[in-house]
Amino acid sequence: MARVSLDNWALPALRPILQLLGGMLVALSAAMLIPLAVDVATRNEDWKAFAISSGITFAVGASLFLSMRRTKIAGGLSLRQAFVLTPLTWLTVALFAALPLYLSDYAQLRESFANAFFEAMSGLTTTGATVIVGLQDAPPGVLLWRATLQWLGGIGIIATAIAILPALGVGGMQLFRTESSDRSEKVLPRVREIALAIGLIYLGFTVVCAMAYRLAGMTTFDAVAHAFTTIATAGFSTHDNSLGHWTSPAIHWIAVVGMLAGAMPFVLYVRLFRGSLDDLRNSQVRVLLGFVTVVVIAMTAWLVHTERYDFPDALRHAAFNVVSVVTTTGFASTDYGAWGNVAVGVFFGLMFVGGCTGSTAGGVKIFRYEVMAKVLHSHFLHLLYPRGVFPRTYAGRVLPDDVVGSVVVFFTLFFVCYSAITIALMAFDLDFLTSASAAVSALSNVGPGLGPIIGPAGNFQPLPDAVKYILSFAMLLGRLELFTVLILFMPRFWRG
Amino acid sequence: MARVSLDNWALPALRPILQLLGGMLVALSAAMLIPLAVDVATRNEDWKAFAISSGITFAVGASLFLSMRRTKIAGGLSLRQAFVLTPLTWLTVALFAALPLYLSDYAQLRESFANAFFEAMSGLTTTGATVIVGLQDAPPGVLLWRATLQWLGGIGIIATAIAILPALGVGGMQLFRTESSDRSEKVLPRVREIALAIGLIYLGFTVVCAMAYRLAGMTTFDAVAHAFTTIATAGFSTHDNSLGHWTSPAIHWIAVVGMLAGAMPFVLYVRLFRGSLDDLRNSQVRVLLGFVTVVVIAMTAWLVHTERYDFPDALRHAAFNVVSVVTTTGFASTDYGAWGNVAVGVFFGLMFVGGCTGSTAGGVKIFRYEVMAKVLHSHFLHLLYPRGVFPRTYAGRVLPDDVVGSVVVFFTLFFVCYSAITIALMAFDLDFLTSASAAVSALSNVGPGLGPIIGPAGNFQPLPDAVKYILSFAMLLGRLELFTVLILFMPRFWRG
Repeated sequence: MARVSLDNWALPALRPILQLLGGMLVALSAAMLIPLAVDVATRNEDWKAFAISSGITFAVGASLFLSMRRTKIAGGLSLRQAFVLTPLTWLTVALFAALPLYLSDYAQLRESFANAFFEAMSGLTTTGATVIVGLQDAPPGVLLWRATLQWLGGIGIIATAIAILPALGVGGMQLFRTESSDRSEKVLPRVREIALAIGLIYLGFTVVCAMAYRLAGMTTFDAVAHAFTTIATAGFSTHDNSLGHWTSPAIHWIAVVGMLAGAMPFVLYVRLFRGSLDDLRNSQVRVLLGFVTVVVIAMTAWLVHTERYDFPDALRHAAFNVVSVVTTTGFASTDYGAWGNVAVGVFFGLMFVGGCTGSTAGGVKIFRYEVMAKVLHSHFLHLLYPRGVFPRTYAGRVLPDDVVGSVVVFFTLFFVCYSAITIALMAFDLDFLTSASAAVSALSNVGPGLGPIIGPAGNFQPLPDAVKYILSFAMLLGRLELFTVLILFMPRFWRG
Repeated sequence: MARVSLDNWALPALRPILQLLGGMLVALSAAMLIPLAVDVATRNEDWKAFAISSGITFAVGASLFLSMRRTKIAGGLSLRQAFVLTPLTWLTVALFAALPLYLSDYAQLRESFANAFFEAMSGLTTTGATVIVGLQDAPPGVLLWRATLQWLGGIGIIATAIAILPALGVGGMQLFRTESSDRSEKVLPRVREIALAIGLIYLGFTVVCAMAYRLAGMTTFDAVAHAFTTIATAGFSTHDNSLGHWTSPAIHWIAVVGMLAGAMPFVLYVRLFRGSLDDLRNSQVRVLLGFVTVVVIAMTAWLVHTERYDFPDALRHAAFNVVSVVTTTGFASTDYGAWGNVAVGVFFGLMFVGGCTGSTAGGVKIFRYEVMAKVLHSHFLHLLYPRGVFPRTYAGRVLPDDVVGSVVVFFTLFFVCYSAITIALMAFDLDFLTSASAAVSALSNVGPGLGPIIGPAGNFQPLPDAVKYILSFAMLLGRLELFTVLILFMPRFWRG
């Protein structure tokens, strides 16, 4: 029998991890001061929940940080440490982020920890599925905290996708490994500079989006909250009807632009500002925009054909909801679940797509479909000419076998997880459409599912607590691109 | 623009193909004499339909065979010819097989050619989905013809899987390429000998199965018809309730054994009779039996737990219906669609499994899951030890990259086809469960789907004609392991 020797490497090895985690919790406790301030300003008793949570989070974070301080992390993290750190951080942050929701006076969240945890995880992973019914009557602190979590989760996943996942070599992300070293330019921008630039762009987009929403007629509060969750392609709203609450076409079109902006690779923006382009990422952008355009045109034609809307409204609703699902945002401008079976089928399929890598979007992601298409194409050529050699190229480079293998395994794993979660949900006697759409929606970090319960007009509240925990796990799994979480379940990972 | 130069190679190249096809049509016209005889014996007017169809089929087949006779095919088929031959043969045989159904006096089949073609394709591909309501009142000739088609389709696919698919190198079938050359034994059994042995075993199993059914209480007619469709893991019955028409546990257990026998690699039986075993195939058998056992135990426990049946009946119904779906037979001993959502989820998942390769079963098939599991395992090891080398072995041999690549592409293609067909069906305003289960059921050649329309208690008759054609295409696609059909859609295939 294999000896599990945690003692050998665990405690000393975990020290730098725990120190980093401590730092993040301190930052989280600082973020809690924003909703606290809003609750104080609006004289809402909930400020106490944020004060207590902030205090606890700060205490735990600071003591972790200080007690582990002696460790040097100058040498960088080991592979194993990085694999432990990534899911551990996201899970711990989600747990502490759930605290103010659970402690708040808001009955829907304090009635079960599952609700608070689900909401926090859905926030942090930029999923956008909610258990709150009657958002318009929810305390402003809670609403702002949800939006803030999504905003933090958005920049968090960009950082993870740029700095950590390529190094771990998961799901073909090694394709983007040269990124931070950036050998293409002589004047090397270092990682820290790129990170700063991306942070500023993220902030800038959010400010522009908020101002646009405000000018188009939202209140300042709604504009800020929605800008947070638009750029993060996240999907929490301040109203049960999501953006369907506003009838203004301007607001909907602003959201379309904002969601697309969030689903692009953020490094590309840095390059754009420097005037240099990048084939690797451009390819994704072109495919994403081309795909969205085709689907929107088809959907518009169908909405006009079935006389559900006249042309301008059909175009707007088609563009809004298709972009919302493809970018894995999860806003709704109307109940597209009521557009008939073919629309349900299309939206179900769209949940598997996802945005570009290095963006805030989730899902399988465009570049993996591009790689898969190359694999299929070269395979068919090979069938026809068994002795021919057909190198698979992507964005002008030959795709290494390693990358192809990773992408292929990612697809397989995605469908395995999707199937397993679907069947797990059906075991709680949920119907097929609800279970399947909840599974892919959580894994792809979209938000709403399909069907009468959790569709765009529905809510996750009626689901049993166990299902909420399963879906929370699925959100984390999808957000961290599967491998990073699943590898921790290998017994071998924990051996000396 | 690419020049399509059919003239260059098409006609001379097609000659040997057309000759073989002619021979098969002659054989098909002979097979039509069996239901003809039965209809004459039972004084059913339908004998005329079989007589006319047999005549037409014979005329076309014989003239094809004779007019193309001058061509030598001693040198074997070229790769391209084999790719054209395989789907062309199956499609043409299905068209001619539909003829007597369409010409018969039986209103349900003659009302639209889509019905007759669907039924013939479902028969030949051993799928078992039916458009006939009130089977017990259908003419005996029609019932026997349906069963005969499945029996022929069963031996047809074994032959295809052993002789043609490995040579084409599709879907990892090249793993079984050494099969016909069979280097492991000194006393070389040649292809023709193996084919003869398999044919005899197939016939023998059918006879034993028919006798067992007869002894257990079926009429001779029902026993023969069901033996044909049991060993072919095909699923047509002579009653709307399928084997649920009989309440005898003995009949159900005979079917369980018969379906499992049909889902094993037939070459293994040849080896067994010779006393030599084969790791490659044994592995599949072990995994299949192990998997089925686990699922049956879980399902039995659940049926007892929910108090739907007492233990013996729970075990019987669980074993029967799980085996029926996993082996892609499609019989039902009861309406398992009414066993609640979790059962629906499990049966939906089971439709993706399939039997062993070289058997009459369809689906993704066990060996591909085994290969995929090896790929996943070695990939996770590689993530943990990026510099390590982890050869993927299967049944004691190292898996060539080529095989791994083919299997992986097969999986991807299966899900692409499944998704595309699902969305296509939803465009006809069918609900999600109906569409998705019809898609996988047709692709895997299972038979019934799930949900109120096409579930085990339902029928494909209410579907629109276009859907019947789409599903017929899906059956052929799945039966011929995707590539063989899809490659014909490559423009490059048809170029000089």
